[in-house]
Amino acid sequence: MAPVTNGRVLFAAIPTGFPVPGETLIYDTTETIDPENVPLNGGFLVKVLVLSVDPYLRGLLRPADVPSYMPAFTLGAPIVSAGVGVVLRSELADVAVGSYIIGMSPHKEYFVAQSLGGAARLRILERDPRLPLSVYIGVGGMPGETAYMGWKEFSKAKKGEVVFVTTGAGPVGSMVIQIAKNDGLKVIASAGSEDKVQFMKDIGADVAFNYKTTDVRDVLKKEGPIDIYWDHVGGDTLDAALEHSNKFGRFIECGQITGYNTGAEPMKNPMLILSKSLSVNGFLVNDLRPTYADDFRAEFMPKLADGTYKYTEDITRGLDKVGEALLGVLKGTNTGKAVVVVADE
Amino acid sequence: MAPVTNGRVLFAAIPTGFPVPGETLIYDTTETIDPENVPLNGGFLVKVLVLSVDPYLRGLLRPADVPSYMPAFTLGAPIVSAGVGVVLRSELADVAVGSYIIGMSPHKEYFVAQSLGGAARLRILERDPRLPLSVYIGVGGMPGETAYMGWKEFSKAKKGEVVFVTTGAGPVGSMVIQIAKNDGLKVIASAGSEDKVQFMKDIGADVAFNYKTTDVRDVLKKEGPIDIYWDHVGGDTLDAALEHSNKFGRFIECGQITGYNTGAEPMKNPMLILSKSLSVNGFLVNDLRPTYADDFRAEFMPKLADGTYKYTEDITRGLDKVGEALLGVLKGTNTGKAVVVVADE
Repeated sequence: MAPVTNGRVLFAAIPTGFPVPGETLIYDTTETIDPENVPLNGGFLVKVLVLSVDPYLRGLLRPADVPSYMPAFTLGAPIVSAGVGVVLRSELADVAVGSYIIGMSPHKEYFVAQSLGGAARLRILERDPRLPLSVYIGVGGMPGETAYMGWKEFSKAKKGEVVFVTTGAGPVGSMVIQIAKNDGLKVIASAGSEDKVQFMKDIGADVAFNYKTTDVRDVLKKEGPIDIYWDHVGGDTLDAALEHSNKFGRFIECGQITGYNTGAEPMKNPMLILSKSLSVNGFLVNDLRPTYADDFRAEFMPKLADGTYKYTEDITRGLDKVGEALLGVLKGTNTGKAVVVVADE
Repeated sequence: MAPVTNGRVLFAAIPTGFPVPGETLIYDTTETIDPENVPLNGGFLVKVLVLSVDPYLRGLLRPADVPSYMPAFTLGAPIVSAGVGVVLRSELADVAVGSYIIGMSPHKEYFVAQSLGGAARLRILERDPRLPLSVYIGVGGMPGETAYMGWKEFSKAKKGEVVFVTTGAGPVGSMVIQIAKNDGLKVIASAGSEDKVQFMKDIGADVAFNYKTTDVRDVLKKEGPIDIYWDHVGGDTLDAALEHSNKFGRFIECGQITGYNTGAEPMKNPMLILSKSLSVNGFLVNDLRPTYADDFRAEFMPKLADGTYKYTEDITRGLDKVGEALLGVLKGTNTGKAVVVVADE
């Protein structure tokens, strides 16, 4: 078989605000690969099928010398995110041809890996036949783990308490809403469009509102005070949540998207942390996984597979559309977990 | 016996910045009392001996309709703080004449109480003969409890970690320094005068500096990063601590004195809570007391009585000097726990 194009999404330039498709991320077709003959050197060849597109990727499009919780992407190289692929060839005894591989995948149509595990945390995916592959990089993957594990670790939720969830129509937020309802809480949830508000109501939010047309303080004054705040946005919404928290409120800092593109926004009155005896916790799901991975498989995944927990996906077809898909999640125009289908199964 | 003057410290006007002795707090001598004949109605008569003066009192000198973690003082009435007195007369079986009473005491020379417990949390003080009465409203009282219980609950301290303690020469901070050293940590401590810096070194701080003459960021850059931050000041120092925290840092919000008189100062970059997986916890010692009171008596008090934990007191004589003493602790001119001696034992 002759070499074929191995399309790639390259980190071409550091964005100053929102990333610009075709400029900060470019789709490159200059690399070729011969799937039948590319040397494996004891490893295996993966054909990428689906890739995850998440807001946190914006934070990795930065200069390499700016420290943060994850290393920056390398300028000129493909970006990386959670993905699932299928093994086309293998020289590794424990990786069979035809098995699905999940892990941190380069944004390429094909890649050769030397081993499972490692920095990319590649592993064989044991797939529940009731679930599509994309779920494993969606609500059945990191976003679902983030919701489930963050909630387990920090919420100290008690039946009858009130939680406020921001970006409640997103893959993490929508799971937080359903986990909180499952725990017997009153759920207030916000998102940025009427469709998303409807979706949040459909999955069980007691109060759902469009933050673009409704004042968050009005809602929290009427429906709060709150006991738990699940933060995805930071900025003024975080300030409002602090103002309307009960004593002993738990603030779960999962994201502060307001500041991702425009720089940090201050917290107006940190004294409220003191005066209300609040607990404000930042976390990365990777640090919670060792503690909660078994619970997640045993408790959360079956509820996804049997339809108890509902989800939506926003599927974009084609590796060349990753830049647009990322811009979509950063601007909030996606509806459901953003996934790029690179190739069909 | 003829009636005698019952001097009182009254909350006379709401301060806009620092309280003004003689204006916002006034010493009043218009009330009289006849200690031998005042009706007890089944209660007991206390002669006040020592009163505590603490920064948090500033927060209670506010309009009654501004909510906070403690009710505001009542305009025109005596202020209240921790105090110790001696029982002169009693009609209560479990309160003997001559016993010491500790609890929230009105700033008066004499007062009649109906019972132990209650909102004032009055109780019989079982005094260790090695310790002066003032210690029980000082480091052996709320400030010591605050340091010990806050540390127990939130520090998750591990030997070899680094803690930064602000107002390290104060009654809480000086105990945090010594508890942290006892736990095997490296201690960085700040205060606002050379005398205080010397005192912090004397009680074991590994690094002690005067924040008025030394840049906190320079110190933390050289001696950090930190694992635990004990906050008494908030403002820019809190920002600096966030910038120089390790991942998984624990921030213990015990006070933010910077904002007490001038209004809240923002936290510049709350995104650091997220990116460093920090835990920021506000607390009130009253909420921790049920959990840790026994440990405090068994573990902390003996170390005070045998001299392991060192302390200093800044003693002011005369109830008429409460206003000045409060201004002193708010401006940081006191050296050691501020106590007002109202009458000798």
